Amino acid sequence: MTNSEQKDLLVFERRESAVRSYCRAFPKMFDRAVNATIYGADDKEYIDFLAGCASLNYGHNDPDMKQALIDFISRDGIAHGLDMHTNAKRDFLETFHSRILAPRNMDYRTMFTGPTGANAVEAALKLARKVTGRTNVISFTNGFHGMTLGALATTGNAGKRGGAGTELSGVHRAPFDGYFGDNVDTAEQLDILLSDSSAGIDAPAAILVEAVQGEGGLNVASKEWMQKMQAIAKKHGALFIVDDIQAGCGRTGTFFSFEEMDIEPDIITMAKSLSGMGLPFAVTLFKPELDIWKPGEHNGTFRGNNHAFITAKVAIEKFWSDDTFQAEIKEKSEFLEQRLQSIADKYGFSLKGRGMMKGIDCGSGEAAADICEHAFENGVIVETSGSDDEIVKILAPLTIEKETFAKGLDIIETAFDCTLVDKNQRSAAE
Amino acid sequence: MTNSEQKDLLVFERRESAVRSYCRAFPKMFDRAVNATIYGADDKEYIDFLAGCASLNYGHNDPDMKQALIDFISRDGIAHGLDMHTNAKRDFLETFHSRILAPRNMDYRTMFTGPTGANAVEAALKLARKVTGRTNVISFTNGFHGMTLGALATTGNAGKRGGAGTELSGVHRAPFDGYFGDNVDTAEQLDILLSDSSAGIDAPAAILVEAVQGEGGLNVASKEWMQKMQAIAKKHGALFIVDDIQAGCGRTGTFFSFEEMDIEPDIITMAKSLSGMGLPFAVTLFKPELDIWKPGEHNGTFRGNNHAFITAKVAIEKFWSDDTFQAEIKEKSEFLEQRLQSIADKYGFSLKGRGMMKGIDCGSGEAAADICEHAFENGVIVETSGSDDEIVKILAPLTIEKETFAKGLDIIETAFDCTLVDKNQRSAAE
Amino acid sequence: MTNSEQKDLLVFERRESAVRSYCRAFPKMFDRAVNATIYGADDKEYIDFLAGCASLNYGHNDPDMKQALIDFISRDGIAHGLDMHTNAKRDFLETFHSRILAPRNMDYRTMFTGPTGANAVEAALKLARKVTGRTNVISFTNGFHGMTLGALATTGNAGKRGGAGTELSGVHRAPFDGYFGDNVDTAEQLDILLSDSSAGIDAPAAILVEAVQGEGGLNVASKEWMQKMQAIAKKHGALFIVDDIQAGCGRTGTFFSFEEMDIEPDIITMAKSLSGMGLPFAVTLFKPELDIWKPGEHNGTFRGNNHAFITAKVAIEKFWSDDTFQAEIKEKSEFLEQRLQSIADKYGFSLKGRGMMKGIDCGSGEAAADICEHAFENGVIVETSGSDDEIVKILAPLTIEKETFAKGLDIIETAFDCTLVDKNQRSAAE
Amino acid sequence: MTNSEQKDLLVFERRESAVRSYCRAFPKMFDRAVNATIYGADDKEYIDFLAGCASLNYGHNDPDMKQALIDFISRDGIAHGLDMHTNAKRDFLETFHSRILAPRNMDYRTMFTGPTGANAVEAALKLARKVTGRTNVISFTNGFHGMTLGALATTGNAGKRGGAGTELSGVHRAPFDGYFGDNVDTAEQLDILLSDSSAGIDAPAAILVEAVQGEGGLNVASKEWMQKMQAIAKKHGALFIVDDIQAGCGRTGTFFSFEEMDIEPDIITMAKSLSGMGLPFAVTLFKPELDIWKPGEHNGTFRGNNHAFITAKVAIEKFWSDDTFQAEIKEKSEFLEQRLQSIADKYGFSLKGRGMMKGIDCGSGEAAADICEHAFENGVIVETSGSDDEIVKILAPLTIEKETFAKGLDIIETAFDCTLVDKNQRSAAE
Repeated sequence: MTNSEQKDLLVFERRESAVRSYCRAFPKMFDRAVNATIYGADDKEYIDFLAGCASLNYGHNDPDMKQALIDFISRDGIAHGLDMHTNAKRDFLETFHSRILAPRNMDYRTMFTGPTGANAVEAALKLARKVTGRTNVISFTNGFHGMTLGALATTGNAGKRGGAGTELSGVHRAPFDGYFGDNVDTAEQLDILLSDSSAGIDAPAAILVEAVQGEGGLNVASKEWMQKMQAIAKKHGALFIVDDIQAGCGRTGTFFSFEEMDIEPDIITMAKSLSGMGLPFAVTLFKPELDIWKPGEHNGTFRGNNHAFITAKVAIEKFWSDDTFQAEIKEKSEFLEQRLQSIADKYGFSLKGRGMMKGIDCGSGEAAADICEHAFENGVIVETSGSDDEIVKILAPLTIEKETFAKGLDIIETAFDCTLVDKNQRSAAE
Repeated sequence: MTNSEQKDLLVFERRESAVRSYCRAFPKMFDRAVNATIYGADDKEYIDFLAGCASLNYGHNDPDMKQALIDFISRDGIAHGLDMHTNAKRDFLETFHSRILAPRNMDYRTMFTGPTGANAVEAALKLARKVTGRTNVISFTNGFHGMTLGALATTGNAGKRGGAGTELSGVHRAPFDGYFGDNVDTAEQLDILLSDSSAGIDAPAAILVEAVQGEGGLNVASKEWMQKMQAIAKKHGALFIVDDIQAGCGRTGTFFSFEEMDIEPDIITMAKSLSGMGLPFAVTLFKPELDIWKPGEHNGTFRGNNHAFITAKVAIEKFWSDDTFQAEIKEKSEFLEQRLQSIADKYGFSLKGRGMMKGIDCGSGEAAADICEHAFENGVIVETSGSDDEIVKILAPLTIEKETFAKGLDIIETAFDCTLVDKNQRSAAE
Repeated sequence: MTNSEQKDLLVFERRESAVRSYCRAFPKMFDRAVNATIYGADDKEYIDFLAGCASLNYGHNDPDMKQALIDFISRDGIAHGLDMHTNAKRDFLETFHSRILAPRNMDYRTMFTGPTGANAVEAALKLARKVTGRTNVISFTNGFHGMTLGALATTGNAGKRGGAGTELSGVHRAPFDGYFGDNVDTAEQLDILLSDSSAGIDAPAAILVEAVQGEGGLNVASKEWMQKMQAIAKKHGALFIVDDIQAGCGRTGTFFSFEEMDIEPDIITMAKSLSGMGLPFAVTLFKPELDIWKPGEHNGTFRGNNHAFITAKVAIEKFWSDDTFQAEIKEKSEFLEQRLQSIADKYGFSLKGRGMMKGIDCGSGEAAADICEHAFENGVIVETSGSDDEIVKILAPLTIEKETFAKGLDIIETAFDCTLVDKNQRSAAE
Repeated sequence: MTNSEQKDLLVFERRESAVRSYCRAFPKMFDRAVNATIYGADDKEYIDFLAGCASLNYGHNDPDMKQALIDFISRDGIAHGLDMHTNAKRDFLETFHSRILAPRNMDYRTMFTGPTGANAVEAALKLARKVTGRTNVISFTNGFHGMTLGALATTGNAGKRGGAGTELSGVHRAPFDGYFGDNVDTAEQLDILLSDSSAGIDAPAAILVEAVQGEGGLNVASKEWMQKMQAIAKKHGALFIVDDIQAGCGRTGTFFSFEEMDIEPDIITMAKSLSGMGLPFAVTLFKPELDIWKPGEHNGTFRGNNHAFITAKVAIEKFWSDDTFQAEIKEKSEFLEQRLQSIADKYGFSLKGRGMMKGIDCGSGEAAADICEHAFENGVIVETSGSDDEIVKILAPLTIEKETFAKGLDIIETAFDCTLVDKNQRSAAE
């Protein structure tokens, strides 16, 4: 790092809160980015295997989205219109309906919440409680749903929960699919508990689940388990909510993470990659018969981010008008699996995740951190996940060029090799 | 409305949730906007006296912000970088420090929360609880702080609170300045309660207050009352939080709403007009010694909206480098006051608010709604506020051209005249 | 204290929890008691001006209650019958109805809760929440309603509240009658708050009030204020609950503390002196139309204390069959007032309380403690009350012999004189 | 039932709340009782297999307790002394220490709470939260701990929980020993959850457990499971609380239900049979180092029931001075097991419980209710337990005469035979 860069970074230390986190792992000033490549202020290139925590599934600065947004701004398109009718909003609604919902036979109303995933989750929880007249929500071990108080109560991570400073209530925590190993059917256990009037778990308003737990360690729910969960929700009068904020928008191979599961959630939350270009944007989808909101009952100043309407529409039209993109994701997913499997095999590690959200469980957070640090020094931005940050998680843009992808994975493999060999050698030498 | 427009609006009815609200008062398709003028899809012009609920203090699509944003997008500036270091972020931090904080002798750390006001409030509450080890927060009658569960607990409005579907706890509600009339010193009452170990109000983590309650009815806290509140917070070991989300960014005449009050809040929340151009953006400011956050303890995908960094920097440089803008706001505020006073006098109504957030208390929500409807039909977008929506609230862009401002106020006056005369005539006729 | 007595007291220090409290103020081993006189194990006599915190309104070991109880035990009357039908229970119910409720035109169902006041309050709160479907309860500054979590949430005392170790929610605290002085109508303030849909106080399930706050400092609610509170409860769809645990059973001059107030509470809680002889016993009374309990929905092993049924029946028959006892209380109350007023006047202190629950506000907890200690050394058991324990509170048995009463008050007066003169002399000497 | 009896029972219907429950199953007026026999007002005899829900382990009106209590009352022993030192209290403390605690090498402080089990549990929870500074408490499926808000939150039964009318928070519900069958180690599952910082279960203040779940269905925890639970509590910094309210005082064969488990709970709650004669009485025991209570931090008017001190002392001296009583319980337990097993075998039902708290799982609440009704008609008072009230639960006094016990069990067997045969015949006939 040059002196000037060090001085630059000092600004953050002096002016920004200590709460900042990712920037600590990547002590570098960044400036611009194209698809899967981020450029430092000094023009050094980095391959982006973090992709805004899956907020940049279509890469950085997609040229078509860029152009549409520039055109919109140039012609004084309304940037902020609260929830007033705008052409941009209408176009998004129509495109989302005709290209995403209708072809999948999905009949959902769209609620524009504040533009964060947490806000979409808060709205989903409110609606489920309102519809059922119940308070209790079932959420899962390692679930991650956001930092505002209602969403945080459903989130598992102790560090995040500890920030609340007050009791997080209204949630019963159940073990996720496979949490106690393959021989324990956690869905059946939940059904037993909810069927027992003396078990002490209040009748739930909702079961809130991720099909793949992105932050929680790339834990994958099986089709059967998700179907059982939906059935359990129905049986016990609860709504079935799928939080598709991180796993949605193509990350697992299809637009929604649960498309091939034959399920029909009552409520779906979306955010992250929904705007296509990384702009703040979130929606809560629900079946029309659940739409008992009174006007303005849940509102928010930024619930109509018109810039995001523009880029989201381009994203949907460009990538989801036919099967080309899905096929491409599938191919890349397989490539990713091969490469990671080969690394994992070398070290007796296990693979985790699904589609383009996969990773390697390195056994310890320390090892994973070392690997990520090594990779960063060699030009790859990659992060960890899991209870102990023990998983090296690859979240490349779905649009990443094949060579870049391969090159990035080479650097990852080298990081494993150097870090683990180094350690072995050091251990041996001691 | 033309047939085609009616058909267009049908899209919202069919696809968007019933929770939508403002669009119901303004049944029109909007397309583009410049400063204080919004254009319908049919090019019909409307004067904007709502300004994104004070999110557009600098008007729509300020040409300098537009240009800076287009340049940034064109050169592939990082739109989404989580909380990684970017040039755009550094520039914002430096500009905010050098042009806003330093000249006012304010020493605060900046925390980038999720880009909604609610998120900034949630972060503020968490921090206050964390710092003090206490749970209870004092908030006020008619206070409005957001829709997520933690922020909602501090919000007064029953309709919004009713959406929670679960208990909103951890808050003691105190009467705002003047709530029981001029003869009751509500600050003194709060001090008595907090000083009495048997009064049953748990020692507070924070006192959370708005200097002007924007949503709650344009209620204005006096300098003396705010000073007392700060002293009470200090005396009882609580943090003093000013929510400057709606009243900040020049709305009352100075950048912060409390600048002329000789107070020094421990925490300040900002959002709405902070990005300058209506893009989602929020920060929580606090004194450096309170910055006990652990890395990532409160995080969020969209807490680094780089587009907003770009436009916010332009806004600060353009409007807050010298006193010109403040002088301009002052002049317009006086003009607004004259015009509203003259209307209010005509009907025996009272004026509310401060600076460029003023309104007329029409005595009933019905009357206020009629007036706003009439104004809209004649080309002005204006909304109500207050417990019963009884206040016609004028939130024009601070940058509004004088003629447009006058023209808009003419339309408002006519709306009062027609609506109230009409009613009187109808009453007389009956 | 003799060596043997010191050794005896050591047992408590070693075996009993540090939570014990009254025994610390009265370091003495007690053995037996008759009416207003308690005898030490060494036969030293003490006049009882504490009366089990108003649990012994009829004095210790009333001969008629004793005899009835001995007879009952001798003939193997059922001591513990859960809530099964027993003759003893039937007789209590009939006597309570015919001698207490019917003559006062009060139509109430009796619920036998666990035999503590806290349990009666918990049952009252549950029922109010069940009937109204609301959660929020209005309780008052300095209110005291018990130590279990639901009751504790309504209690004002910070020391007690601090024992909870968890958040106490579901309660809005309002100022009691006269809390802010004579010029502030706290009932009117509450009505304003509850009438304002934006005030942020959720529609209440109940207003829970004591007519005289025994623990909270002998604060007296006026008839007008109580009537207003009842009207406010009705107006806002809440139940009006009077907690008559300490002020009831004749303590203020009539059986219920509110008899001369022309009010009709929806729910009344009773305990303390209800059994007549100090046996654990509590009931919750409510209007028949509120009796929507499902069988066993609130239960408890000791909710049918048959020994208490026996003594309670005797108490009611003996003391409440005609007006003699009321007249006697009235006479003693006046005597008490004269004596206390004369002491208070001497020192510029103020009198507090009503009927036979009166005291002197000594300005500081230290002074009050000194006075009580002096009195104890001279043979009177008396305690303090109030936010800072600043009030010397006289709670003599209502049945106390006149000479004993006078003698006890002489000792109290001497305690004031010696303590305060001593202090003055010491102050002068310094 | 005679006309006069019917009229008598009408009093309860008209004057007592609908919440009454046991009396509905036993439509009879009772009057007196000796050991295991209850006499109707008409002198009809009933064998008591309910024993005040295990509050009458030593039967009704034990002659020695009776005599001691009569003597105490006759000589004006202090009935109500708040928590002041009395001879009766000292004697209880010493006897409890020398005969119960010391011989078992148990070093515990005794806290006299309000005289209900719920109050003892509330005190235990408060203390655990206070000591650990944590809020969350682990309690178990089918656990039963009382009706006040804090205790109710830990109770499993939905009907009871539904009475709260507000959210019951601060508790994570875990499956009891064997809840998911013999192959699932629920202790291990809890350990996994608590060891995972991302599992979402907040670090607990306490693990609260019954060794035998009396109300929850006579579910028995194994020694191994209890040891694991204690170890898990220790490992995760939580206190280990055994609620011995129903299973204690000899019910399972030893004074404490866990004596043969090699465990050492941090806190133990006791009530029900502790007074020996069915008088309201409860204590919370804890290790001396946990005694961080401030004086009066948890108090209560009836926390020193001196009548109960007298009878409790006699009970301890009479039954627990040597091993005779234990041997007697053991013998009766075996007899009970034989008799129940033979009934269970006949119908393919399963046996539940331990010691003298055993029952038969009849598969359905309807069948169990029919059996109890038949038994009552033939002179046995017996009740059900379990999630669906599907278990016929035998809780005879431990002191029951052998012939009475046999006679009662004969009636129970006949009730099974008649009820189930009847039903089969009816089924066959249809």
